[in-house]
Amino acid sequence: MIAKFRQPLWLVLLLLLHWSLPLQAAEPLPSWREGATRTAVLNFVEQVTTQGSKTYVPVDERIAVFDNDGTLWSEQPAYFQLLFALAEVKRMAPEHPEWKDQQPFKAVLEDDQKTLAASGMEGLMKIVGATHTGITTEAFMANAEAWLAKARHPKTDRPFTEMVYQPMLELLDYLRSQGFKTYIVSGGETAFMRTFAQEVYGIPPEQVIGTSFVSQFQIIDGQPSILRTPKLAHNDDGPGKPESIDAIIGRRPILAFGNSDGDLQMLQWTAAGKGARFMGLVHHTDAEREWAYDRGSKIGRLDKALDEAKKQDWTTVDMAKDWARVFPFESASK
Amino acid sequence: MIAKFRQPLWLVLLLLLHWSLPLQAAEPLPSWREGATRTAVLNFVEQVTTQGSKTYVPVDERIAVFDNDGTLWSEQPAYFQLLFALAEVKRMAPEHPEWKDQQPFKAVLEDDQKTLAASGMEGLMKIVGATHTGITTEAFMANAEAWLAKARHPKTDRPFTEMVYQPMLELLDYLRSQGFKTYIVSGGETAFMRTFAQEVYGIPPEQVIGTSFVSQFQIIDGQPSILRTPKLAHNDDGPGKPESIDAIIGRRPILAFGNSDGDLQMLQWTAAGKGARFMGLVHHTDAEREWAYDRGSKIGRLDKALDEAKKQDWTTVDMAKDWARVFPFESASK
Repeated sequence: MIAKFRQPLWLVLLLLLHWSLPLQAAEPLPSWREGATRTAVLNFVEQVTTQGSKTYVPVDERIAVFDNDGTLWSEQPAYFQLLFALAEVKRMAPEHPEWKDQQPFKAVLEDDQKTLAASGMEGLMKIVGATHTGITTEAFMANAEAWLAKARHPKTDRPFTEMVYQPMLELLDYLRSQGFKTYIVSGGETAFMRTFAQEVYGIPPEQVIGTSFVSQFQIIDGQPSILRTPKLAHNDDGPGKPESIDAIIGRRPILAFGNSDGDLQMLQWTAAGKGARFMGLVHHTDAEREWAYDRGSKIGRLDKALDEAKKQDWTTVDMAKDWARVFPFESASK
Repeated sequence: MIAKFRQPLWLVLLLLLHWSLPLQAAEPLPSWREGATRTAVLNFVEQVTTQGSKTYVPVDERIAVFDNDGTLWSEQPAYFQLLFALAEVKRMAPEHPEWKDQQPFKAVLEDDQKTLAASGMEGLMKIVGATHTGITTEAFMANAEAWLAKARHPKTDRPFTEMVYQPMLELLDYLRSQGFKTYIVSGGETAFMRTFAQEVYGIPPEQVIGTSFVSQFQIIDGQPSILRTPKLAHNDDGPGKPESIDAIIGRRPILAFGNSDGDLQMLQWTAAGKGARFMGLVHHTDAEREWAYDRGSKIGRLDKALDEAKKQDWTTVDMAKDWARVFPFESASK
């Protein structure tokens, strides 16, 4: 179809040019300090977005994947979703008088950290099962939203959704402005992350991939709903990440960002594709503004992936050095 | 940021207006005959896209889901993916001399339909397992592409990717032009459908949802890949459809199109949402141009969903009556 112009084409193009120029004037990534890390990000984006260059990647294939815990928001003193699960046990306790004498629930209700820790993965799965399943997706998300709205982080007293990294928010925005499709690929549970991903990260539900439970379509009193069963469908950690990327996205990312050994395989999968690639690791080096941990940490252990990053020349973000600001509620430092 | 105009704003707006008007002039859905069905589609789209109306739906929430077999392309005389699997058994036979004496492979190699049919679901799963798994996603997709490129439909002698419904291609295009995000949600296997969905339907890999196998990330000789194992991960049929919509899209569709009882739950799930909804069924009524089958058919049985469509006033497409053209390679009739 040929559009009929009432004005000459050159005039329209000229106007559009004048119109769009000022939009490109703002400096991207203002909370990233000048240096090799910021330059590596900018260079990569330029490489894949410059028309006619050998490394150009069409918009449709600009897939960027991000881990969540420790990459987009904090994960200390414990994964926020675990804090949610523990809070839910307390909230639900009146409906479950049996929990008073039943581990690991008894330990949660009595703030008995030692017994709780001793209950291990089996205990954790019982807690997650009791608080995350046996209800519909809608009901679960309402619970998560209610907790996120009122819960506060034990150290900063901020809502958990403010414990997000300002530089990473800027990176997500910048990538999207350059035609990237941004995904979360995280060990966190999918529906939990969907309750805040759109508002906090600008990432819509269909671009949130996480650990999931087997669900069951049911019709009760003529009303269809999706019931969450306690059976794990997919553990979206380690090798589970490239597996879910292949199953759900069906394209190989050209950029991947993580912060722990659980992200290693996602980074390897991204790195092994053809053409320009960006593999990034957030290294928690800032005990003052955030936390400092890596090889010895139980949460977000970064050991093998750190070695691999050095070996393969992936980009490691030194949080203390590379970020002028960590959280949105702080002011920037030079 | 305020854009600085070299020309007055009213002039820019005027030009943009004149520019965009001709683009809306073409009549949508040219292969749909005038009548209640076509009108129902157009009315629904108008309802959800008219700014300020009570039934308006923001662009992000305009999710449309389509079954594939029998809804977007034909499924007779057998599901095309099954024909692919049988062809693969023959292609792979030289590497598997044991198949000569092993059912159901022996029956496939000898074109023994009776024994093959008698092998039932168990036999089918063996054939699918042997032809669809045990290799990487990349290798499997290369096999599927090779078959699609050379195989021809037994009745029309056309490539299978031409056995698609012209009116549905127009509907997909029209919905996308109105801000809808179009998804396939099908019992077909995901990677198989991804080999042609972009080119044939304009649907990208990340919007193709289907039956899937458990996969395994592996690194062999330093090269990462995704191995497809024979274990079924998700059967995307019947209740499996709303389950995968909830798990992968995380939003409830406002439009759903199917053609068989396997689509009933997807239509129910769509219908039960708030606001304007469109539930459509392709009814195969055209023995001359395509095939005529419904309640008694083994393939694409349409029985319960047809009753429900009548009861709930869903839209049923009478292929013979509503479509001026069925396949892209045919000319239109009045």
